[in-house]
Amino acid sequence: MLSQEENELITRVGPGTPMGEVFRRFWLPAMLSSELTEPDCPPVRLRLLGEDLVAFRDTNGRPGVLAANCPHRGASLFFGRNEECGLRCVYHGWKFDVDGNCVDMPNEPPESNFKHKVQARAYPARDAGKVIWVYMGPHRPAPELPRLEWTLVPDENVYAHKRFQDCSWLQNVEGEVDSSHISFLHRSTGRNLGDATDVVQTQGAPRFSVLPTDYGLLIGAQRSASESTDYWRMTQFLLPSYTMIPARPGAYIDFTGAVPVDDDHMIGFTVAWRPDRPLSAEDVAKIESWDYVYAEVDQRTFRPVRNRENDYLIDRQVQRTESYTGIKGIRDQDHAVQEGMGPIVDRTAEHLGSADTAVIQVRRLLLSLVADVQAGREPYAAQHPEAYRVRSGDGMLPRDASFEEIARAYTAPVSAG
Amino acid sequence: MLSQEENELITRVGPGTPMGEVFRRFWLPAMLSSELTEPDCPPVRLRLLGEDLVAFRDTNGRPGVLAANCPHRGASLFFGRNEECGLRCVYHGWKFDVDGNCVDMPNEPPESNFKHKVQARAYPARDAGKVIWVYMGPHRPAPELPRLEWTLVPDENVYAHKRFQDCSWLQNVEGEVDSSHISFLHRSTGRNLGDATDVVQTQGAPRFSVLPTDYGLLIGAQRSASESTDYWRMTQFLLPSYTMIPARPGAYIDFTGAVPVDDDHMIGFTVAWRPDRPLSAEDVAKIESWDYVYAEVDQRTFRPVRNRENDYLIDRQVQRTESYTGIKGIRDQDHAVQEGMGPIVDRTAEHLGSADTAVIQVRRLLLSLVADVQAGREPYAAQHPEAYRVRSGDGMLPRDASFEEIARAYTAPVSAG
Amino acid sequence: MLSQEENELITRVGPGTPMGEVFRRFWLPAMLSSELTEPDCPPVRLRLLGEDLVAFRDTNGRPGVLAANCPHRGASLFFGRNEECGLRCVYHGWKFDVDGNCVDMPNEPPESNFKHKVQARAYPARDAGKVIWVYMGPHRPAPELPRLEWTLVPDENVYAHKRFQDCSWLQNVEGEVDSSHISFLHRSTGRNLGDATDVVQTQGAPRFSVLPTDYGLLIGAQRSASESTDYWRMTQFLLPSYTMIPARPGAYIDFTGAVPVDDDHMIGFTVAWRPDRPLSAEDVAKIESWDYVYAEVDQRTFRPVRNRENDYLIDRQVQRTESYTGIKGIRDQDHAVQEGMGPIVDRTAEHLGSADTAVIQVRRLLLSLVADVQAGREPYAAQHPEAYRVRSGDGMLPRDASFEEIARAYTAPVSAG
Repeated sequence: MLSQEENELITRVGPGTPMGEVFRRFWLPAMLSSELTEPDCPPVRLRLLGEDLVAFRDTNGRPGVLAANCPHRGASLFFGRNEECGLRCVYHGWKFDVDGNCVDMPNEPPESNFKHKVQARAYPARDAGKVIWVYMGPHRPAPELPRLEWTLVPDENVYAHKRFQDCSWLQNVEGEVDSSHISFLHRSTGRNLGDATDVVQTQGAPRFSVLPTDYGLLIGAQRSASESTDYWRMTQFLLPSYTMIPARPGAYIDFTGAVPVDDDHMIGFTVAWRPDRPLSAEDVAKIESWDYVYAEVDQRTFRPVRNRENDYLIDRQVQRTESYTGIKGIRDQDHAVQEGMGPIVDRTAEHLGSADTAVIQVRRLLLSLVADVQAGREPYAAQHPEAYRVRSGDGMLPRDASFEEIARAYTAPVSAG
Repeated sequence: MLSQEENELITRVGPGTPMGEVFRRFWLPAMLSSELTEPDCPPVRLRLLGEDLVAFRDTNGRPGVLAANCPHRGASLFFGRNEECGLRCVYHGWKFDVDGNCVDMPNEPPESNFKHKVQARAYPARDAGKVIWVYMGPHRPAPELPRLEWTLVPDENVYAHKRFQDCSWLQNVEGEVDSSHISFLHRSTGRNLGDATDVVQTQGAPRFSVLPTDYGLLIGAQRSASESTDYWRMTQFLLPSYTMIPARPGAYIDFTGAVPVDDDHMIGFTVAWRPDRPLSAEDVAKIESWDYVYAEVDQRTFRPVRNRENDYLIDRQVQRTESYTGIKGIRDQDHAVQEGMGPIVDRTAEHLGSADTAVIQVRRLLLSLVADVQAGREPYAAQHPEAYRVRSGDGMLPRDASFEEIARAYTAPVSAG
Repeated sequence: MLSQEENELITRVGPGTPMGEVFRRFWLPAMLSSELTEPDCPPVRLRLLGEDLVAFRDTNGRPGVLAANCPHRGASLFFGRNEECGLRCVYHGWKFDVDGNCVDMPNEPPESNFKHKVQARAYPARDAGKVIWVYMGPHRPAPELPRLEWTLVPDENVYAHKRFQDCSWLQNVEGEVDSSHISFLHRSTGRNLGDATDVVQTQGAPRFSVLPTDYGLLIGAQRSASESTDYWRMTQFLLPSYTMIPARPGAYIDFTGAVPVDDDHMIGFTVAWRPDRPLSAEDVAKIESWDYVYAEVDQRTFRPVRNRENDYLIDRQVQRTESYTGIKGIRDQDHAVQEGMGPIVDRTAEHLGSADTAVIQVRRLLLSLVADVQAGREPYAAQHPEAYRVRSGDGMLPRDASFEEIARAYTAPVSAG
């Protein structure tokens, strides 16, 4: 439970907001690399942290992200001509490179020096892990990209997925770190947790252990599997709004990222990767069955096929007999509860229990970062890309295993890259 | 004509508003009983007085109305599992009975006493007259249901109809008590008033008499029918926002209720009943011709087929030659003028005449109730269900009949129940 | 570049706003005469300067424009009966003539004198040039209509076109007076400028000369055509928001008007006329090819077929190879940039150069008019209809031609009328 002031503080992300300033310290996944199909391809609209932007890929293949409105008189650069290493506004032909320099201004006399006085708002952008990342913060040069394992392995090891979600990014993050809800919301929906399935489905009250780390939090959820063993699920929360949800040994690993479009809309990224080898056809088929954490989306708009307008195609008969919700996929089930809370949930009306331990810890961490940035202290993780070289996972462990011991394995840097 | 302050005061109904507090003293028709098809049927979304709610029918057949958002973390209970005498949130399995008690909390350790500290916001709900009534007020136990005749007769005597209307509830109420407009808006539209049709259609300036009553107002509209007789239409206005429009002797009687969804949306209920016997197939056929006070609605959404988006399918040729409006049914004609005023009409710009006597009286009564409730005085009618045992009607009466005499018949309790 | 205060001041047009008061000094094109098809035809909804109105043509063929809501209780007069020299509200039969007089009030007793105390808000309206003009200002009698040439020639000499545009009227005006953008936005789109086409398409940096006039501004844009000649384009800006864009000798002339629906929506009028003879079938065919300044619109809604929702049907392949934008018509190209700026562009973020001279001058003129009206000084042009008897045009002129000399020809009254 937060005060209304805290809830505003932690959720608002527009220019000048305290939490918006936190987000502007980190590289953010912004779109799929494949959306900018090739050098000089058509520009694409983008909205992040309440700012309207346009993305393009220049003649050299470099991604560029500019404020959507031309600095001349505000025409949308979306309609621009992407040509010869720059995006040209169609209104009067002003042309900008990926760094925002005005490289041509053909409607002013050649002798005019005006173009050197004009700069488009440009944000550094990079391709990594089949995703285009954007840095909207104040530092130049921008910090290094976070060394997330999936951004360092070959592209064929990676599957990257994007969707729009119509609620605050924080509602999504709180779901991702909440290991308790999978015992309910996702019960009997084909999510194969191997031997642990029964444990999770019958034990709805896991014990939580949370460890603050350089990159965020390591969250352990512990359930009794037998008299002598516990089933542990280890979730990574990575600043500012990313998670790695537990993977079974031998399976691919999943990253999720909640990136604010604005206060009450977000882009959700879900990435699968194998550290050691390409994803198999079977891996991809599983992902594209859309019954796990990958939502089926309209390929043009990235809007989920099951959505609020159609009540996620809930089937009340299936809800009665087969699954807890009657909604098809894990991700769509998450959407139903997260979007169903409304654009920004009223956190003053909550009743939090021990199962909400991770949620509470994430909020505290984010509020402390807000205070840090307001006080001029840069977030450590934003400046230390190596911190992100971790994985999530699960496992059956002896009853007397200590969280500290287990945690050591999960916070040690992984090998890739 | 009201001041802007009065207009705000009398129309706003959200939590904490003065008029909202008046509405929260009364049982309100909320939905059709048939929308909750059977015990443990799927829950249904509901919005009343600016509050998002969810309605369900429990295993014992009792209707329940809860705040839409789970008190845990705000997931929508609409997606909930309705099972074993309670509605269970799909996010973490918390379960609530129709009284809002948390009867299961499976994501907390059994030894935790947390579930006894949690209560969902629940409003008393009852089936009566094929309608589900909700009481959103502060008193427990809730007062008794108003003893409206149609809630006391057998179900087969009753036809209950619901529609959404996109304007303030008060615009609808003002139309219902306004006996003057039927001479114009509804002229020549197949509304058979028997011998009185000609009288109403040719005499647009009735004389109004209004009698304050325990339940609201009795409104008489008097038109000359011949040298020695007057045609009287007696409309009942029942607090907070109900009317009984005049019925011909021998015909079924009509109740209408305007229930605020929020400040500028309402649910309209129209109920036909016969005190003495089941409605006939002919009665139902007349209702379902949709040319009287029952609008043709989409059966799934309860939105009128003729609506603002399609200009109520106005036919200008018909308007020229056959009916005053060129719009098909009486109710749709009402919608055209009431929604056409805008969400909340500007009552500071009105010009009221003697034909608006009943409208003025209704406003005064409502404003006096606002003052009463603000001063801690409970509205009499809300606490005295017997007061609602009245009927409306019309009749040809000798010229020298006195309103007081006529009124005595209409304010005496009817027999049913 | 304007301050935020200036940008608000110059763009807001609702009742009581300073710029709204300026607009209310001038006759405004409001709709096509053909929308009111005949005497006693169905009324038509209209929204101008943030006011909801209804237009009708009375039995004598006179156009009338009334506030949309009946002064009685606010029902929409759109549903009214247009009959016997007045528009009758269907709610209670009140009837108003084109001057707003209440000429019948059948729901009040005949002896009541109430109808003489009621007046509908009515604005003077006139047909001229196949357009209905409305005067929403304080003066009675209203001033004379501006003596624009196309309103004085026979109807067969005129083609009048209307479209809705979803942005501030000022964004459209600024495009119309901006002779620089045609070298870019409209490059290679079939706009035949005759011998001047090459000059315009290769010379994006014209020199601007601007002359203040009685009616607004005369704007000259000068480009070198050869060693000894210049190509001049002379655009007229006429208060409050009209332009005449240059015509080639022998071709029809084009008028454009940007009329505010409200702060961020406008109606765009484009009118072609020949001073001396009827438009030819060829003229009309050219207009209705929709590749020039006339947008293809839905004939019922006047919404452009190429619009924001479908990205103006931009064809990126065509943009690469054939035209600067890949969007079909000149007008649709303008829409893309003008609507793409957003509802009201942020003029504090602009970077204006010498090519924006005319834009800057128009803003200054409008701001000075705002100050005039606030100080009680009536705009000269609004009171002097003869001032509008001018034309636009272009021409090849010797290098040493002076702007003052050229201007004299364009500011002399034209013969028609």
